[in-house]
Amino acid sequence: MATILLLSGPNLNLLGDREPHHYGTTTLDELVELARRTAAEHGHDLEHLHSNHEGAIIDAIHDARGRCAAIVINAGALSHYAYSVTDALAAYDGVKIELHLSNPYAREEWRHRSVLSPVVDGIVAGFRATGYRLAVEAAAELLETR
Amino acid sequence: MATILLLSGPNLNLLGDREPHHYGTTTLDELVELARRTAAEHGHDLEHLHSNHEGAIIDAIHDARGRCAAIVINAGALSHYAYSVTDALAAYDGVKIELHLSNPYAREEWRHRSVLSPVVDGIVAGFRATGYRLAVEAAAELLETR
Amino acid sequence: MATILLLSGPNLNLLGDREPHHYGTTTLDELVELARRTAAEHGHDLEHLHSNHEGAIIDAIHDARGRCAAIVINAGALSHYAYSVTDALAAYDGVKIELHLSNPYAREEWRHRSVLSPVVDGIVAGFRATGYRLAVEAAAELLETR
Amino acid sequence: MATILLLSGPNLNLLGDREPHHYGTTTLDELVELARRTAAEHGHDLEHLHSNHEGAIIDAIHDARGRCAAIVINAGALSHYAYSVTDALAAYDGVKIELHLSNPYAREEWRHRSVLSPVVDGIVAGFRATGYRLAVEAAAELLETR
Amino acid sequence: MATILLLSGPNLNLLGDREPHHYGTTTLDELVELARRTAAEHGHDLEHLHSNHEGAIIDAIHDARGRCAAIVINAGALSHYAYSVTDALAAYDGVKIELHLSNPYAREEWRHRSVLSPVVDGIVAGFRATGYRLAVEAAAELLETR
Amino acid sequence: MATILLLSGPNLNLLGDREPHHYGTTTLDELVELARRTAAEHGHDLEHLHSNHEGAIIDAIHDARGRCAAIVINAGALSHYAYSVTDALAAYDGVKIELHLSNPYAREEWRHRSVLSPVVDGIVAGFRATGYRLAVEAAAELLETR
Amino acid sequence: MATILLLSGPNLNLLGDREPHHYGTTTLDELVELARRTAAEHGHDLEHLHSNHEGAIIDAIHDARGRCAAIVINAGALSHYAYSVTDALAAYDGVKIELHLSNPYAREEWRHRSVLSPVVDGIVAGFRATGYRLAVEAAAELLETR
Amino acid sequence: MATILLLSGPNLNLLGDREPHHYGTTTLDELVELARRTAAEHGHDLEHLHSNHEGAIIDAIHDARGRCAAIVINAGALSHYAYSVTDALAAYDGVKIELHLSNPYAREEWRHRSVLSPVVDGIVAGFRATGYRLAVEAAAELLETR
Amino acid sequence: MATILLLSGPNLNLLGDREPHHYGTTTLDELVELARRTAAEHGHDLEHLHSNHEGAIIDAIHDARGRCAAIVINAGALSHYAYSVTDALAAYDGVKIELHLSNPYAREEWRHRSVLSPVVDGIVAGFRATGYRLAVEAAAELLETR
Amino acid sequence: MATILLLSGPNLNLLGDREPHHYGTTTLDELVELARRTAAEHGHDLEHLHSNHEGAIIDAIHDARGRCAAIVINAGALSHYAYSVTDALAAYDGVKIELHLSNPYAREEWRHRSVLSPVVDGIVAGFRATGYRLAVEAAAELLETR
Amino acid sequence: MATILLLSGPNLNLLGDREPHHYGTTTLDELVELARRTAAEHGHDLEHLHSNHEGAIIDAIHDARGRCAAIVINAGALSHYAYSVTDALAAYDGVKIELHLSNPYAREEWRHRSVLSPVVDGIVAGFRATGYRLAVEAAAELLETR
Amino acid sequence: MATILLLSGPNLNLLGDREPHHYGTTTLDELVELARRTAAEHGHDLEHLHSNHEGAIIDAIHDARGRCAAIVINAGALSHYAYSVTDALAAYDGVKIELHLSNPYAREEWRHRSVLSPVVDGIVAGFRATGYRLAVEAAAELLETR
Repeated sequence: MATILLLSGPNLNLLGDREPHHYGTTTLDELVELARRTAAEHGHDLEHLHSNHEGAIIDAIHDARGRCAAIVINAGALSHYAYSVTDALAAYDGVKIELHLSNPYAREEWRHRSVLSPVVDGIVAGFRATGYRLAVEAAAELLETR
Repeated sequence: MATILLLSGPNLNLLGDREPHHYGTTTLDELVELARRTAAEHGHDLEHLHSNHEGAIIDAIHDARGRCAAIVINAGALSHYAYSVTDALAAYDGVKIELHLSNPYAREEWRHRSVLSPVVDGIVAGFRATGYRLAVEAAAELLETR
Repeated sequence: MATILLLSGPNLNLLGDREPHHYGTTTLDELVELARRTAAEHGHDLEHLHSNHEGAIIDAIHDARGRCAAIVINAGALSHYAYSVTDALAAYDGVKIELHLSNPYAREEWRHRSVLSPVVDGIVAGFRATGYRLAVEAAAELLETR
Repeated sequence: MATILLLSGPNLNLLGDREPHHYGTTTLDELVELARRTAAEHGHDLEHLHSNHEGAIIDAIHDARGRCAAIVINAGALSHYAYSVTDALAAYDGVKIELHLSNPYAREEWRHRSVLSPVVDGIVAGFRATGYRLAVEAAAELLETR
Repeated sequence: MATILLLSGPNLNLLGDREPHHYGTTTLDELVELARRTAAEHGHDLEHLHSNHEGAIIDAIHDARGRCAAIVINAGALSHYAYSVTDALAAYDGVKIELHLSNPYAREEWRHRSVLSPVVDGIVAGFRATGYRLAVEAAAELLETR
Repeated sequence: MATILLLSGPNLNLLGDREPHHYGTTTLDELVELARRTAAEHGHDLEHLHSNHEGAIIDAIHDARGRCAAIVINAGALSHYAYSVTDALAAYDGVKIELHLSNPYAREEWRHRSVLSPVVDGIVAGFRATGYRLAVEAAAELLETR
Repeated sequence: MATILLLSGPNLNLLGDREPHHYGTTTLDELVELARRTAAEHGHDLEHLHSNHEGAIIDAIHDARGRCAAIVINAGALSHYAYSVTDALAAYDGVKIELHLSNPYAREEWRHRSVLSPVVDGIVAGFRATGYRLAVEAAAELLETR
Repeated sequence: MATILLLSGPNLNLLGDREPHHYGTTTLDELVELARRTAAEHGHDLEHLHSNHEGAIIDAIHDARGRCAAIVINAGALSHYAYSVTDALAAYDGVKIELHLSNPYAREEWRHRSVLSPVVDGIVAGFRATGYRLAVEAAAELLETR
Repeated sequence: MATILLLSGPNLNLLGDREPHHYGTTTLDELVELARRTAAEHGHDLEHLHSNHEGAIIDAIHDARGRCAAIVINAGALSHYAYSVTDALAAYDGVKIELHLSNPYAREEWRHRSVLSPVVDGIVAGFRATGYRLAVEAAAELLETR
Repeated sequence: MATILLLSGPNLNLLGDREPHHYGTTTLDELVELARRTAAEHGHDLEHLHSNHEGAIIDAIHDARGRCAAIVINAGALSHYAYSVTDALAAYDGVKIELHLSNPYAREEWRHRSVLSPVVDGIVAGFRATGYRLAVEAAAELLETR
Repeated sequence: MATILLLSGPNLNLLGDREPHHYGTTTLDELVELARRTAAEHGHDLEHLHSNHEGAIIDAIHDARGRCAAIVINAGALSHYAYSVTDALAAYDGVKIELHLSNPYAREEWRHRSVLSPVVDGIVAGFRATGYRLAVEAAAELLETR
Repeated sequence: MATILLLSGPNLNLLGDREPHHYGTTTLDELVELARRTAAEHGHDLEHLHSNHEGAIIDAIHDARGRCAAIVINAGALSHYAYSVTDALAAYDGVKIELHLSNPYAREEWRHRSVLSPVVDGIVAGFRATGYRLAVEAAAELLETR
């Protein structure tokens, strides 16, 4: 049994409320619960942290080193400029999965490039709530084959 | 019960043999079988077509209109320049999922931009064989919530 | 009396059905018929070929050399990247007219550049069905003044 | 019966005289006469204005609002930088057709982008004198189907 | 008591009529009247000139030298390419305020760069009619603190 | 009576002291007081928060949802890269005004683009202390016309 | 004996007064007189036109066709965007000399590219008043060797 | 004794006929014969395939795996955009030589970049018919030193 | 005797552990100790702050104003996008030295541009542990010659 | 009486012989003689150095410091990349004139930017042999007004 | 019998020793000897010059005019910026062949563009030692067909 | 005891005299003496070469192979375009340190990119005379830890 860390970046606390045509109507609590259930089905624990502070996201990635076997990160808009998060993920040895609720390529141009993508194992984007289940499943499967 | 069309573009027939550090050692037949089993678990049929010909991929997308409920497409390098495939997918009304075995953002710069991404529902990239299971699951879940 | 070759590229077989706000509701058969009538009014024959295969479009351009006096080509999305079609048209000595149903400049940025434009005689874009009449008329008039 | 406004931008008064390999040998008067005859064949009037002054072109577009049913505009080099003309055309509700005598894509790079194209209905380029007939016909046909 | 010159560039004469979702329903006369009242509240005169001609705008800026204490300029689309207006404003020593009715950054990319901005004192954009009051107030306040 | 939230981003606490040729000699406390007086003249309350932490700015925008009718934000250099603040503002439904003390277009190139501008109602830039009065006035007027 | 046309574009009427560190303290009248004397020394007449209107500059170039043997043009900021002037000069068969008082390459980046340069015979830049003498001399010498 | 595969992409069937100033007057058959003779001089067989279809080129590269010791490919305009051919060549382990009849760097800008070059062993360009002899010789020599 | 502030940005707490081929095996504590000894050799105190929070780095720079004579900053990945740190440093009057352990120009392209470099006195990059000694020495020497 | 240094960069020794449609038929000796006569008419000496070596050009500029009152430099293709020559000219306090025989803006794109232009007093381009007379005259006149 | 000039640019003297994974283990002397033998097989002489000085390379190209029938040039890194060598080659009328030992397109981005390529007859790249034989053969064959 | 080679590129012989606001008032001889003293303190010899010729710098780097343990290079403006020096340094196995007197990032944009940086061990920039001491110290320390 391993621990999977789910990280939610800036503005994800507004889910269910903010721009539902992009992000759906599910709340962050419901998504975390869905992720937790999926992890449990694979015999894993799931921890969750949300913060609007880039530094807190980095602190959490550091804290997961040697303690959590995988990170699933929906970094919100930090995905598009926060190279400090890139470096934190690069220094983390576990499974790393980047998650986006909406399809960034169907939105503004600045969302088309993620500075995190080059250092993660895989990417799940555009499936709204379902993406949380898929990303945790992906983490669980990668943990088995490592 | 619905039919899901799995499309494999240029060079994917070489899987298991070609550059295993990027694509893993599983063969295309094994991936298709994995995808078929996943579809069956959700009560769906899966059809598969591989072609190295862009035109054949487009023909297949047209043929799926009104007959298949979802398309999962790993278009290989066509993803990065074949706007005709973009147009074919844009004219298809079912669920559309873009799939990549490797993480394109950890490779050459020209793989960082997919011309298909703006017209699909979601993207699954970097999970090698596991991605085929995830993409079909994603299709199945999106079909339920449509 | 001369023969005009009308070429229809990828996805044009979907006309009348696909994204009518961009392409109108006329079918490809109706457009070909309109083009044929226009050609006949000027005393010319019209041949038509549709293919979703770039290679078939190139084969047809080659085959028209010395046999057809003019080519009217709506290459669909191939217009925006298929330099092999550019080269085939450059090697064709007859009248060459590029045709677009919708106005590419009022759509996505990648449609703003046509790789075919530098080697054709003239361009007709944005007039939907009417464009087929105009392009054939233009071909007929250019044939008279050569 | 409607009125079609034909607008000729900077340097078009030199036609027949200036760089005949690009623009042909027909004079502007002859082109206007050709356009007028074409309009008459469709039962329409044609007004013409030439000016080397961007402001005068804008004034004329404003003046056509509610009075002319269509504008055919050959804006000359203004096509490539004069966003004020873009705005004037965007505020005009009738049929709008952009016309070029030569094929801009076979010439200098700065002629490859027209700032007017995104706001017009259609584009006719490269047919020299014949283009005037085609553009007026296009206007007439679009007037019928509006 | 000083004189403030309000300059309105191409197409602003259409206000109230043209694209109300961008520009609101107030007419230019009403905006000028609002600006004049605001100037009067601060004890200043207001002159207004509208022209669709870049040259006339430049002439007016020259004519204001030594006669008007401030210029409020809504140059319309000239803002985005007319470096001659930039040079005219740079050579004017009074207070200079750039005004836009709509928020250019929420519109087409070519409206995101103003060639006038580097030489003005300040910018007021996006407040529709209210912007005219704010810009004149800003001019009045800057005149006091010079 | 409504509440207007004034937000001051990184380094604005140094005002009055830092680079006075760009930012003037007024302190942040004086600017807040000016803004408060202006709000009061229009019958509104004004709250103020300064932080050098991007996350704290985002938290404050979230906290203002449903509680404050308008936000006036001078985000300092965050304006030029902090897309997380963009997303936070986009998810806020009240009046949004972007404020800059100096004219960014007369300074380094990287200050010419604000990532916040596309999601705000209007922009006030370059008027130093006066800008605080104008921005609050603008907020008050927009609140009346909503 | 031939006639040389000296053309002065937008803002050059302000010379002697405007930004003397860039343009020197000589007035436009003095420069024209210097140019006229230089022309006379070579046995030529000199005509001069100043206008802040791009259209008037174009009209003058047209009017010089077949009447003036050379054009010396200081187009001011029009040099950097007014492709209509480019086209007018391209259609003029006489000697064509581009003149700048200051060195554009030592100023803002947008002054580094002149859209007129590709169609003139030669360029004289940076010599302030002396440039007027040199440009007219250059015209005179080119007239002799044609 | 080994087999060398010579591949000819789109439009090369027109050789001897098409634009002789770029491609010379030798026909494709003659070039293939020259290549075959050169191969024979080194004790090798030569197979040839021409196709205007990108997919057929890819199929042929796949088919050569484990059967042909070297590929000499003149991919025509596919060289400049067909990343699917790049991937096919990357997955081929034998000697790979890129061949161009004309010098692409002395022609249009889009011919200056080949997407195939990064994955081949060497490049021969600009020598017209002679290039076929040189490329086969190069293949033969590389086969000896592997 | 003066105080030198040593600032360590995001992820530097991982030193000695993270990617030793880029950053060496020395820990942050050892580097701080080395820096402190070097400062002491020159008769100066050294304070150190590490934070993964951009805002905390800015707060520390503000706090150093008037209290510390020099800042040596290794801002980690913040160097490449955090313009708020640029502004904080620009507002600091003491000696400012930018420090990088690895050579950014031998790594990913996004590390080639530092947004801090234009506002610092000098840069020391690529010397791993030794760089901390050099940067403090540089600070000490610049303090003597101010 | 002063000394003017005329510098001729790479390939200028071939003048009269090399590409006469760009450079004319006059030899370098004749041009130097023309320059010398022009200098003498103004009472000045002229020294000349030609070298194909960038370093020799730099040495000569250094050697002219305090000895020659002006430099006229035709640096040939070095103009377009040799920043070391830029620095050498920047460190020279006398009059500096950049000279080109042909009009670089009517040739290849890489000739459109001169790295020398930002540090010279003025530029003379496109007048072939006449340019040598004009550049020396310009130098003489600038020497008088310094 | 003709003379072929082989030119070796900067750093090629290090061959056999420097970065053998890029350049192989053959020394420059051995390559020159191989080239000489190949020339002799075709009945030609071969001269060789190596220099690390751009100017010496240019001098040698000039010296070859009218004396050597062909130049084979491996300009090393000068290929990527030394436009003065471009001009020297452009002024040389004989056969011109550009040679690279390694495949520049499989290396750093700055090696992907050669400023020499547009003015040579043909290019041979990537074949290491074998390239010297091929380039001389190519020269010999082009000499026969001129 | 080892030998350190100090290389000074174009224009550095002017130090103390040229643009003292950028480069300080110390002469090159004084800097070399400072570097030599620093080397001696670490028990090393120091050789120095200055040249304005790129080729001489390359020759010196070659000559240092196997003879000098470290190179400290201030290549002047060659740093920004001379890829031949890049290649020479890449082929040198000892310690390599790039040195700049001024901070290139606080100057013209073309100084922001050094083509040498990717192949050196470390960079010291902006410390004027002190930089020579620091660079030699850095070399000495790296020699100890190799």
